[in-house]
Amino acid sequence: MTWDMLNIIGTIAFAVSGVIVAMEEEYDILGVYILGLVTAFGGGATRNVLIGVPVSNLWNHGDLFIIALITMTVVFVMPSIWFNFLKHWTFFDALGLAAFAIQGALYASEMNHPVSAIVVAALLTGSGGGIIRDVLAKRKPLIFREEIYAMWAMLGGLAIAYGWGQEPWQLVVLFIAIVVLRMLTVYFGWRLPRRKLKS
Amino acid sequence: MTWDMLNIIGTIAFAVSGVIVAMEEEYDILGVYILGLVTAFGGGATRNVLIGVPVSNLWNHGDLFIIALITMTVVFVMPSIWFNFLKHWTFFDALGLAAFAIQGALYASEMNHPVSAIVVAALLTGSGGGIIRDVLAKRKPLIFREEIYAMWAMLGGLAIAYGWGQEPWQLVVLFIAIVVLRMLTVYFGWRLPRRKLKS
Amino acid sequence: MTWDMLNIIGTIAFAVSGVIVAMEEEYDILGVYILGLVTAFGGGATRNVLIGVPVSNLWNHGDLFIIALITMTVVFVMPSIWFNFLKHWTFFDALGLAAFAIQGALYASEMNHPVSAIVVAALLTGSGGGIIRDVLAKRKPLIFREEIYAMWAMLGGLAIAYGWGQEPWQLVVLFIAIVVLRMLTVYFGWRLPRRKLKS
Repeated sequence: MTWDMLNIIGTIAFAVSGVIVAMEEEYDILGVYILGLVTAFGGGATRNVLIGVPVSNLWNHGDLFIIALITMTVVFVMPSIWFNFLKHWTFFDALGLAAFAIQGALYASEMNHPVSAIVVAALLTGSGGGIIRDVLAKRKPLIFREEIYAMWAMLGGLAIAYGWGQEPWQLVVLFIAIVVLRMLTVYFGWRLPRRKLKS
Repeated sequence: MTWDMLNIIGTIAFAVSGVIVAMEEEYDILGVYILGLVTAFGGGATRNVLIGVPVSNLWNHGDLFIIALITMTVVFVMPSIWFNFLKHWTFFDALGLAAFAIQGALYASEMNHPVSAIVVAALLTGSGGGIIRDVLAKRKPLIFREEIYAMWAMLGGLAIAYGWGQEPWQLVVLFIAIVVLRMLTVYFGWRLPRRKLKS
Repeated sequence: MTWDMLNIIGTIAFAVSGVIVAMEEEYDILGVYILGLVTAFGGGATRNVLIGVPVSNLWNHGDLFIIALITMTVVFVMPSIWFNFLKHWTFFDALGLAAFAIQGALYASEMNHPVSAIVVAALLTGSGGGIIRDVLAKRKPLIFREEIYAMWAMLGGLAIAYGWGQEPWQLVVLFIAIVVLRMLTVYFGWRLPRRKLKS
């Protein structure tokens, strides 16, 4: 059940983020739907490729597909005034990141992979959809840009690798922690160190 | 046989479109060949990933590979005056879209997938090669841009999902319909609704 | 052993090239690590997809993963003065190209694939990591750009297809030849023919 909840939250959140990015790029309605779908299912596809499950298993999730379609339609037709409440699509990106990062880490953990694999699974499952979204919108992927992004997914993976997340409430705490840390990052403009190179 | 014809038409058409895009971007001769190949086989690779067939099955299509190589060579060396007849590479993109969309839909249909899967298979099989081509040419994928594009592939998938396409002549009609609708779209500048967001 | 050496050289070289590109794009430290990893393992992932081996087999290479992590850390913290010795990241890209091209060709050769498949395997295994790196850095892939790039990988594949490379010393010669030809290409600005199209 926890598993399904994470899948649903991640799917909805990434579908919304894909739709908003597509609208910012002035893509037409079908472009909006396609970018939303690709963002929503890109995380799952990345996870499947990484753990060796056929990508075609995604077809079994007709329910998630319907949920994504409804979500995208609602966002596309909803009154403009609501967008003032959404404001930053990064919030939805953060929800998707947290949901899929936890799910990817749980999956890798159940298959008894080593800690490093769990951390990488958390990172790539959580960020796969967003990377594909940004490449298709001809943007530099968010994960590489200004604010701290990937670290929270990796910390989530680390927590699960060391046994946190046996109980549902622990997963809820972890989920909220990742989302809050991600939003605080955006709000305060936290950054990781970088190093410039004259090219 | 119908199957093979669709494969050959799609391969040639997308190879040509890849070559023309590469020449527009001033890629060198090997860049031209690689972009042509990727565009021609990207649709098939996308289809294989979607339906759970190994991508390596593409190696069995040595004949298509040869056809693509000959096609690309002809386009690369042909006299400039011929390009005036080609004019818009979108025509070849339309041929590839129609051929692979129908083929993807037939494949999904034969595996008794639900209607939604058939429509998505038509869309992604038909557009996979073009999306990869545009990303590698650092363009916004055509499918998301100005004119109606994806809808014709999806309508083709829908037609096959509801039983059209049992007879070869029906597939021919469907193929011509998709190409004509796509070209009319470009000619008249038809557009789907979109919604702007101030970002 | 030869196999492992090629894997290690290719991984280190592409990790370095990914790190340098990421620093040129002013990505943060995690962006640097991710781009390095993707560049280093993209070649192997491409090879696995092409020959029908699950991408998840990459997880078995924990040692390469560690090597890549150490490499990236060293490059990220090393004194600026050292960068004057590196100068062009294309050198590392050339090392990676040579190592993975030879490895991909050997793999395809051992599976008794035809000459064309061996040449393509050399090309795509050698260039997969670099293409992914460039797309994620929002650049036009190097392989399509100014200088001759792909041809050396294909010549390497051709050499192996015709029996060169049975002895370790032959592989060493081939490896050095590809790197030297690639660097001479950059130094002298050799180019392949291209053809302009007014778009």
